[in-house]
Amino acid sequence: MFTFNCDYTEGAHPRILQKMLDTNLEQTVGYGEDPYCAQARQLIRQACGREDVDVHFLVGGTQANFTVIRAALRPHQGVVCPVTGHINGHETGAVEATGHKVLPQPCGPEGKLTGKQVDALVQAHWADEAREHLVQPKMVYISHPTENGALYTLAELEELSRVCRERGLYLFADGARLGYGLTARGADVTLPDLARLCDAFTIGGTKCGALLGEAVVLTNPELQKDFRYVIKQSGGMLAKGRLLGLQFLALFEDGLYQEICGRANQLAYRIADACREAGFPFFAQSPTNQQFPIFPNRLLEQLGQDFLYSTWAKVDEDHTAIRLCTSWATREEAVDQLLGDIRALGKEL
Amino acid sequence: MFTFNCDYTEGAHPRILQKMLDTNLEQTVGYGEDPYCAQARQLIRQACGREDVDVHFLVGGTQANFTVIRAALRPHQGVVCPVTGHINGHETGAVEATGHKVLPQPCGPEGKLTGKQVDALVQAHWADEAREHLVQPKMVYISHPTENGALYTLAELEELSRVCRERGLYLFADGARLGYGLTARGADVTLPDLARLCDAFTIGGTKCGALLGEAVVLTNPELQKDFRYVIKQSGGMLAKGRLLGLQFLALFEDGLYQEICGRANQLAYRIADACREAGFPFFAQSPTNQQFPIFPNRLLEQLGQDFLYSTWAKVDEDHTAIRLCTSWATREEAVDQLLGDIRALGKEL
Amino acid sequence: MFTFNCDYTEGAHPRILQKMLDTNLEQTVGYGEDPYCAQARQLIRQACGREDVDVHFLVGGTQANFTVIRAALRPHQGVVCPVTGHINGHETGAVEATGHKVLPQPCGPEGKLTGKQVDALVQAHWADEAREHLVQPKMVYISHPTENGALYTLAELEELSRVCRERGLYLFADGARLGYGLTARGADVTLPDLARLCDAFTIGGTKCGALLGEAVVLTNPELQKDFRYVIKQSGGMLAKGRLLGLQFLALFEDGLYQEICGRANQLAYRIADACREAGFPFFAQSPTNQQFPIFPNRLLEQLGQDFLYSTWAKVDEDHTAIRLCTSWATREEAVDQLLGDIRALGKEL
Amino acid sequence: MFTFNCDYTEGAHPRILQKMLDTNLEQTVGYGEDPYCAQARQLIRQACGREDVDVHFLVGGTQANFTVIRAALRPHQGVVCPVTGHINGHETGAVEATGHKVLPQPCGPEGKLTGKQVDALVQAHWADEAREHLVQPKMVYISHPTENGALYTLAELEELSRVCRERGLYLFADGARLGYGLTARGADVTLPDLARLCDAFTIGGTKCGALLGEAVVLTNPELQKDFRYVIKQSGGMLAKGRLLGLQFLALFEDGLYQEICGRANQLAYRIADACREAGFPFFAQSPTNQQFPIFPNRLLEQLGQDFLYSTWAKVDEDHTAIRLCTSWATREEAVDQLLGDIRALGKEL
Repeated sequence: MFTFNCDYTEGAHPRILQKMLDTNLEQTVGYGEDPYCAQARQLIRQACGREDVDVHFLVGGTQANFTVIRAALRPHQGVVCPVTGHINGHETGAVEATGHKVLPQPCGPEGKLTGKQVDALVQAHWADEAREHLVQPKMVYISHPTENGALYTLAELEELSRVCRERGLYLFADGARLGYGLTARGADVTLPDLARLCDAFTIGGTKCGALLGEAVVLTNPELQKDFRYVIKQSGGMLAKGRLLGLQFLALFEDGLYQEICGRANQLAYRIADACREAGFPFFAQSPTNQQFPIFPNRLLEQLGQDFLYSTWAKVDEDHTAIRLCTSWATREEAVDQLLGDIRALGKEL
Repeated sequence: MFTFNCDYTEGAHPRILQKMLDTNLEQTVGYGEDPYCAQARQLIRQACGREDVDVHFLVGGTQANFTVIRAALRPHQGVVCPVTGHINGHETGAVEATGHKVLPQPCGPEGKLTGKQVDALVQAHWADEAREHLVQPKMVYISHPTENGALYTLAELEELSRVCRERGLYLFADGARLGYGLTARGADVTLPDLARLCDAFTIGGTKCGALLGEAVVLTNPELQKDFRYVIKQSGGMLAKGRLLGLQFLALFEDGLYQEICGRANQLAYRIADACREAGFPFFAQSPTNQQFPIFPNRLLEQLGQDFLYSTWAKVDEDHTAIRLCTSWATREEAVDQLLGDIRALGKEL
Repeated sequence: MFTFNCDYTEGAHPRILQKMLDTNLEQTVGYGEDPYCAQARQLIRQACGREDVDVHFLVGGTQANFTVIRAALRPHQGVVCPVTGHINGHETGAVEATGHKVLPQPCGPEGKLTGKQVDALVQAHWADEAREHLVQPKMVYISHPTENGALYTLAELEELSRVCRERGLYLFADGARLGYGLTARGADVTLPDLARLCDAFTIGGTKCGALLGEAVVLTNPELQKDFRYVIKQSGGMLAKGRLLGLQFLALFEDGLYQEICGRANQLAYRIADACREAGFPFFAQSPTNQQFPIFPNRLLEQLGQDFLYSTWAKVDEDHTAIRLCTSWATREEAVDQLLGDIRALGKEL
Repeated sequence: MFTFNCDYTEGAHPRILQKMLDTNLEQTVGYGEDPYCAQARQLIRQACGREDVDVHFLVGGTQANFTVIRAALRPHQGVVCPVTGHINGHETGAVEATGHKVLPQPCGPEGKLTGKQVDALVQAHWADEAREHLVQPKMVYISHPTENGALYTLAELEELSRVCRERGLYLFADGARLGYGLTARGADVTLPDLARLCDAFTIGGTKCGALLGEAVVLTNPELQKDFRYVIKQSGGMLAKGRLLGLQFLALFEDGLYQEICGRANQLAYRIADACREAGFPFFAQSPTNQQFPIFPNRLLEQLGQDFLYSTWAKVDEDHTAIRLCTSWATREEAVDQLLGDIRALGKEL
């Protein structure tokens, strides 16, 4: 049985583990102030092409999201996101638990917001005479790639960023799967672009080969101030913080991050191509490691005999969108076998 | 330079790392529902002598504390603790950030609460006609060992537990360094005692040889309900949750937890004995891995040349209490060298 | 210039003011424990036909809503409401500020939820394997009348109540304009019905003739416990609490509440009839004191010369729904004059 | 039976009620944007000698306190206050409920903080290497008069203000009983002083002759921004907001505030003098309307036969400090009778 249901079913990439082994007995200061965290920070700054950004290593994605948001917003301010945004529907209300309303906006299957959309809603807020009875939009949250595997184009991101700056909102990009986004076919958004266009963004570790950990990059000085206090208060400051630094060091010191994510994308494209050729339509177009083919329900049981997949969305009475993921740990032979099954099932369409 | 300043300067015990290596490529379900977490839970239940307790693995101590507290309390309720309690002074107000007042109580240098003290304050609350203007005490938080290394006796813990049950309060014990407490000279509180007397307690991993992680044991069914939702919302649910399960499995499957903590205690006693013999008094009596000798300020620089220690408290203009810690990773020769220094410094008293 | 824009442009009904004058120099205990609050509570209990309900007087509607909700929910639980619900869009995120997500549901222009809708969403929650990553629905919030003036029928309310009880959710009805709902043409929901079918509901004072104040009625014993602590903590406990009790005493001791609200409804019907006859369609059907006719934008300026109205919704490029309200203080001659204007404007349609 | 237990046992001063009567049928805009609120704001600005301060009218004291505090602080910041501060012990943890730790400091029976004390604690915070594990002090809360009736001298307040500005903290003065403080014997702090030295302060209405209401004066532009959103979210924005404006208009348009508070002080001095002459010592020295004589317990029952007093503090096994208050509504003959009793009881000392 092979698992394609998500991209965090195995442990860490061996080069990460090796680094942990090699340094295990060294004595370092705690709470992320050790030399390994410092090195990893430096590498990330270089990769972003900016020396003036702050980099923090947090334990997980939900935590990174709400920590950034609560550090940035005043009590009456909320965060705009697509209705499909992870903070809106898959974090048990963690943002609201910190006191802030999530302001979900309609979006297509790709799960993206447009600058125009943001502009309209912010203008509507400030034009409303009763605006003090409404939550003030102050931050825009997007995911890149989105929850449905899609990517913003550079033009789209620039437009969003321009609107946010014009209207006085922070732009925050959740990069839980950023590695897949940076290495996707046709992707034109780079780390320096994110560092230039966003006020904050995360570089996901957990879903990109690490054991755990997300790097939070803060580019806006307003968000940088006292951020470590807020991490500590939010339960995100690891005593043995080097565990996070070491992993990002391994991922960034010689291109491992992009290497393993790029490879996973390639495997995903093979799956996508097979689905397409076999006649399965897609729920959303994804150039990244998550693919969302639509299967007739009657074929799902058969598919499930050899492979684990995620159920993603009910399309109609008879059809279901499923999620198939690849990762650093996906084996070629597992993909080969999956392709065989897809082709076979395609004949029963 | 050897570090005695805290017990989390190295990585994880090698047997923990080995287990991570051995299982790294296995595919398991996420979020703590994998077989390794299940096994670790079962071992902890056995060690507690109760099959009906819930065991959850969280990322860190601050997070474990505020997650338990916010899951248990209603908005108007607060948590009583000694003024030295970790939640009161070293977690950046994480409990208050979840909306609950910490109600600190005076205590001696050992950092302990008494049942009598709790009884008096709870009775005073309910006798107060204006009690609705006060925070209602609903939980008692203690640390075992305390922040100053001391231990509750079984009789003290039984008394606290009796009062809490009589008065309708939850008793929650923070066991960030529980391993050292269970194996200390003269300790008479066991895991089954904690499971019998507390409504919730933690079994610390980070400071007892793990990379990270705290086991939360919930014995009171009222606290068990929906706890995983609250973990997720609080940012404490690890995607690759097995990382935590594996570590507790390694610590509990063949007595490693008590073995390494017991050894660290023995090394700490050697340090304590040397201080005593050399004429250094103690800030607090500790039978565990943290020792708090008082040094004349004029000798501290010299001590600091070879060893890292923590500054703990200013005793008077000329004297400072310091903390010296041991851990699974403390080397005998480092201790030997420290003893030499202590003896030498003692002659300058 | 007459104001029809809302129902709180004047002070209090004269009989309320008179009661304040008559008792002004009496000395009473504070914080709502005085004899006038007690009498008012007793009258409300009688009007509800239940002696076992708790009645509290709070300062305002937003406060009453978030106080009830935060007192009732655990951290991971949320409150389901129609997307038009007051808590979702007009309280500056007050519910989220207490840590709880509002779960807005689609609804028609009337702004109502159905039992079926609630049933489906609650079942979907519990059927979801990843439900611990979602906010748990635990309360249903409705308004009666709704924000758009509509009323639940008794059958609809019974169905909602049945579903909530079957699925373990609390049903909470916001009665900011309850008086108009109880006395509306065709209304079949009574105070005893609300007390029988809801776990909590409010009886609005501010919009029904009082200076300020909302009565919160708690019928479910789970919600009654310690509620005064939560009021105090939420800033809703008035030192001179009798000010609220006196007003509800005046409103309930001889039928004033229903008398003045019923009269306002009658005036509203005259306005509605005039609009209908003049050819103006309606944004929502309302049998209560708020009417929502749709006007061509070109006629609005003319209407606004003599009357204040609220802009409610943009219907299309050329048409706008407006709100016209009546209250205890609406004068017959103002209505007469408004009717004249409406008829005149109708001729320009 | 006369009540001296608190200063809010009656309704409002007749001139306040009269103003409500006179304007009751006028139609005004809601939410504090009416002409009466505007006039009252203007009078308060004049009384403060500053045109650039923002004035808001909130419903109550607890609400005013937590609204100012949560609007001002970031998540990791806390508010320093004397241990006797109202926010620390008599508001059911309302400040903590908004996520912020109260940092109580030791103080004498007068309940005052010193600039030196604040300076030391802020310096200690910033000197602590582990300060990110501590709540950051960012605001100082004082009461003027204090909970025990005492007053800051101008020199003391200037010193506190100087320290706060030097160290980057906000200074917030709770003036729930400010009227008594401004008119006390020997008082040298004026409204312009408060406006010059504090970043925010309140002018109490409820305890100084109004039905309800506190004026919040914001002098620091940082605190002014978007404050109305936070009021609304906190449940403090009254729909019929003019009710608050009218009262402060009545209190400030012709010196009523100082007139009635000054008279109450005079009556309190008569009580204090009688206690002193009769041989009763005092728990705290108060030049304002609250007096805290110490009575032998054996005499309390007798005193309680004719008068209501508050029990304030247990002094020893046999003695209790009580509170006797005067207000705008205290009648001369009640005071005369009380003086008689005090003298009679003094003979039994």
